[in-house]
Amino acid sequence: MKAKIGIVTSSDRASQGVYEDVSGQAIIATLKEYLVTDWEPVYRLVPDDQVSIETALKQLADEEGCSLVVTTGGTGPALRDVTPEATEAVCTKMLPGFGEQMRSVSLRYVSTAILSRQTAGIRGKTLIINLPGKPKSIKECLGAVFAAVPYCLDLIGGAYLETNEDVIRTFRPTGLSK
Amino acid sequence: MKAKIGIVTSSDRASQGVYEDVSGQAIIATLKEYLVTDWEPVYRLVPDDQVSIETALKQLADEEGCSLVVTTGGTGPALRDVTPEATEAVCTKMLPGFGEQMRSVSLRYVSTAILSRQTAGIRGKTLIINLPGKPKSIKECLGAVFAAVPYCLDLIGGAYLETNEDVIRTFRPTGLSK
Amino acid sequence: MKAKIGIVTSSDRASQGVYEDVSGQAIIATLKEYLVTDWEPVYRLVPDDQVSIETALKQLADEEGCSLVVTTGGTGPALRDVTPEATEAVCTKMLPGFGEQMRSVSLRYVSTAILSRQTAGIRGKTLIINLPGKPKSIKECLGAVFAAVPYCLDLIGGAYLETNEDVIRTFRPTGLSK
Repeated sequence: MKAKIGIVTSSDRASQGVYEDVSGQAIIATLKEYLVTDWEPVYRLVPDDQVSIETALKQLADEEGCSLVVTTGGTGPALRDVTPEATEAVCTKMLPGFGEQMRSVSLRYVSTAILSRQTAGIRGKTLIINLPGKPKSIKECLGAVFAAVPYCLDLIGGAYLETNEDVIRTFRPTGLSK
Repeated sequence: MKAKIGIVTSSDRASQGVYEDVSGQAIIATLKEYLVTDWEPVYRLVPDDQVSIETALKQLADEEGCSLVVTTGGTGPALRDVTPEATEAVCTKMLPGFGEQMRSVSLRYVSTAILSRQTAGIRGKTLIINLPGKPKSIKECLGAVFAAVPYCLDLIGGAYLETNEDVIRTFRPTGLSK
Repeated sequence: MKAKIGIVTSSDRASQGVYEDVSGQAIIATLKEYLVTDWEPVYRLVPDDQVSIETALKQLADEEGCSLVVTTGGTGPALRDVTPEATEAVCTKMLPGFGEQMRSVSLRYVSTAILSRQTAGIRGKTLIINLPGKPKSIKECLGAVFAAVPYCLDLIGGAYLETNEDVIRTFRPTGLSK
């Protein structure tokens, strides 16, 4: 069975058709570069509304059976930025190390990286990771944490993912097998 | 209209007049160095008591209309250290990147920096930032995060701040105007 | 009076006798290396069950009077990993800087360090610190934060600890005396 990866773009304007969702496309392109395992994207475009984001996350995890769900948008300090709140509301375990590491890497480029509230968490057998909205930051942030994603999915009973080791060197502790 | 910046010193002894509040003065002096925008300090000196700190924060945000409120004191692990709790209680959004970055910079100087629980958050159109109590650490910590403050206020609808670029190089993404 | 330090190993298999608890032993050996103060370990081995961990933590803090309690195991993303939850449930104050610093140091060795949810907090006069389950990581993580532990205990009214300065250089701000 193909691994499923959910992509949730949270954007009022993109969801109204005001502009194209380049961020969601950037995530799919980056994941294609990283993964050698056969996988299938499941895509959702929602407004910056907490209930809409929660609903998308729950569907992708519970109904679609995605092992990984990656969000983009809604991680800043503005009033309509509620993706971290939606993520926390649907997860049973939070993984603060993801946000710390993504901010730490983004800080090498811009001092405003500390404004990002992006986090990650577990819902059942699904890992949910928030990425920022800007396409350039998406690649920086996903690259900052992806080496730990396959082993995380092993631990929570998700799909077995293999990466292109020339791009992302996955870490799995010795002795762990499929 | 002048930008207003709240300064809250939380200290049992300073509020009883046992000693002078040098920390609050250090914040005002540092902000004078950083900002070229015309601004006005609104000062509060309160005991290390959660309700008193919350009340001061709410007044400065809601009644005084401060775009930024900076606290000093009460961020350690001792029983009377409750400033982060008061901050979290009055904020609708927390910004964990501020605490991470301030601790990370303080760690270059002292290994006890990990004991600081300082954080930051948003209440309406006000950004609240906790600083430690020691005057020396205040400058280190404020310097570690201030470059991101003006853009944060832009995003939450606060005052437009401009810094002395020789001291603090403010980062605002291109294309963003007043 | 001798300082008491609690060691809590959370492991389903070790608590069933399937294998020996090498992690708990590694903590005791590391603390012996660090401390010159006379101290006594108080040891508990429990299954990966939140209530069992909470009960052990409360007994060590409230009944045994341990100034420091160090846990090992149960900090990952898997379903049975609940040590951070148990810690948060029994603490009145959390110290996020410990987890940040331990993950930051572990990241120098393995990219999966971001999966660790380890944290630290205060219960009364007791500091509780989560360490990972792997003996190799235990030493890395304890070494990453221990310099701040003695001063933390001073601030919360715990035992006065002195370290072997050749191994761990304790930081206590000037002017602070026993």
